[in-house]
Amino acid sequence: MISKPREQASPVLIVGSVAFDDLELPSGAEKDVVGGSATYAAYSAALFAPVQIVAVVGADFPEATLADLKNHGIDIAGVERAAGKTFRWAGRYAENLTGRMTLDTQLNVFADFRPKLPAAYTSTPFVLLGNIHPALQLEVLDQAQKPRLVAADTMNFWIEGERKTLLELLSKIDLLIINDEELRQLAEDHNVKRAATKVLGMGPKRLVVKRGEFGAMLFDDHGCFFAPAFPLDNEVDPTGAGDTFAGALMGYLANVGELDAGTFRRALMMAGCIASFCVEGVGTRVTSKLTQHGAFARLAELSRLVQLG
Amino acid sequence: MISKPREQASPVLIVGSVAFDDLELPSGAEKDVVGGSATYAAYSAALFAPVQIVAVVGADFPEATLADLKNHGIDIAGVERAAGKTFRWAGRYAENLTGRMTLDTQLNVFADFRPKLPAAYTSTPFVLLGNIHPALQLEVLDQAQKPRLVAADTMNFWIEGERKTLLELLSKIDLLIINDEELRQLAEDHNVKRAATKVLGMGPKRLVVKRGEFGAMLFDDHGCFFAPAFPLDNEVDPTGAGDTFAGALMGYLANVGELDAGTFRRALMMAGCIASFCVEGVGTRVTSKLTQHGAFARLAELSRLVQLG
Repeated sequence: MISKPREQASPVLIVGSVAFDDLELPSGAEKDVVGGSATYAAYSAALFAPVQIVAVVGADFPEATLADLKNHGIDIAGVERAAGKTFRWAGRYAENLTGRMTLDTQLNVFADFRPKLPAAYTSTPFVLLGNIHPALQLEVLDQAQKPRLVAADTMNFWIEGERKTLLELLSKIDLLIINDEELRQLAEDHNVKRAATKVLGMGPKRLVVKRGEFGAMLFDDHGCFFAPAFPLDNEVDPTGAGDTFAGALMGYLANVGELDAGTFRRALMMAGCIASFCVEGVGTRVTSKLTQHGAFARLAELSRLVQLG
Repeated sequence: MISKPREQASPVLIVGSVAFDDLELPSGAEKDVVGGSATYAAYSAALFAPVQIVAVVGADFPEATLADLKNHGIDIAGVERAAGKTFRWAGRYAENLTGRMTLDTQLNVFADFRPKLPAAYTSTPFVLLGNIHPALQLEVLDQAQKPRLVAADTMNFWIEGERKTLLELLSKIDLLIINDEELRQLAEDHNVKRAATKVLGMGPKRLVVKRGEFGAMLFDDHGCFFAPAFPLDNEVDPTGAGDTFAGALMGYLANVGELDAGTFRRALMMAGCIASFCVEGVGTRVTSKLTQHGAFARLAELSRLVQLG
């Protein structure tokens, strides 16, 4: 598993949110943490590939944070600065980090977000549609010219309230990346194997099911693959781990440049690896400092977890 | 992974309960299902090794059922028939089989169970102490002469109420086989990795953590190993899956006759396999019909779940 330097890989376009999060964690309160699905996914994908973000921030968003994204090889030409405040979310985690409660959501400029792809992004081969309204995810696809791989995330809110639009989206994407609760809700079946078969019947050629500390599963026409989670003894902040997972998956695929079953399986292992780093620190503090060398070292450890010999 | 015929393997001694279960399953109600930890573990272990059971049944227990155990290579000389009724349990499962509610427990003859090893069992090399009072588990060890491997199961009830006796037991066994909730409760730590380290510090050289549909983990001085669960699309009855898992693990180890790290890892994979068969039918209906050939065929499928290539 040799990886190219980021600059030599195909670019990845990421559409999603950029936000400020106020987090009440067992380790203490953290204010104004830069988060959002696009942020988490971008830092993670940028380990392996050039990244382009389409998102919106408010007048209050610091230039220094945008500069940090740029310094990580993330193209921010698609980040629109709108009049008003940046999206804010506040949440409180349970003492054991298994559950969380939303304390406050202020959509602010994100409420009117209409993703617009700069001309240079329309031919980007790898596209990750973060969790936004499925109608907006479809608008992105309308602007993109025959990408090689389109992946999408979604959430319970759209599965419940925008099922028809979501089903239209599913017919147009290659890869759906969701967690197990979303899978069960989307398929209306508690059994993961049956649910996966149903969701593959809705359009995507591949399905990735994220299961947090229990790992992740890939379903495609080669069957089922299981990637364990990396066992951590110092969990700090699970915020954004799912977005980090999706970003690493896409970045890894863009880096390798192959879309065969084996590459997807290795991408799933790497995605779990990078997501585990995310949980070890607040926000993107760990993943934004990560190197490919560090990522591959943990991947080797993770691979040993399932070695029989 | 070649296996010996059962008759050529070392014997496994299993101490536990034999019971009648009344099960309310999504697929319908099932009355008088022969269950109990020793029954499930015995049918499972007997795939790989000669099995000896120490348990108690009441006057109402059918001779035909005992005969069926014998026909499966299970020695029932240690099954005491006491005056009174056999242990009965009644439970209702949730529609998706994730939760269950106990409707009735009648300990009956099991209330006064004091395991007595027939002389022929005292030198049995592989001993599985099913989930009974830890003081009784200790009594079994007092009767056993230097077994090669002692494994034990336990439950929340003993972890809460009999901690001191349980800790004495843990100092005397080689392998603890529990589920993740029991692990967290025993270690008083939600984090699985930290909890496993604490429990290994209590005595057992190896710890197996059962996580149902999420697979199982093995912790020992070679680190951590992860075995995925076999994804089923036809779950029927999870009763006894954990006991079936433990029985298969011990049976496989007794069959191979080696106690190195690699053998334990393969045993964990096989245990998950046999447990998946258990869930596919009511009671021991599937596992009691299973062959080594069928077991190894599913093991090959399970192994492919974690193959990168």
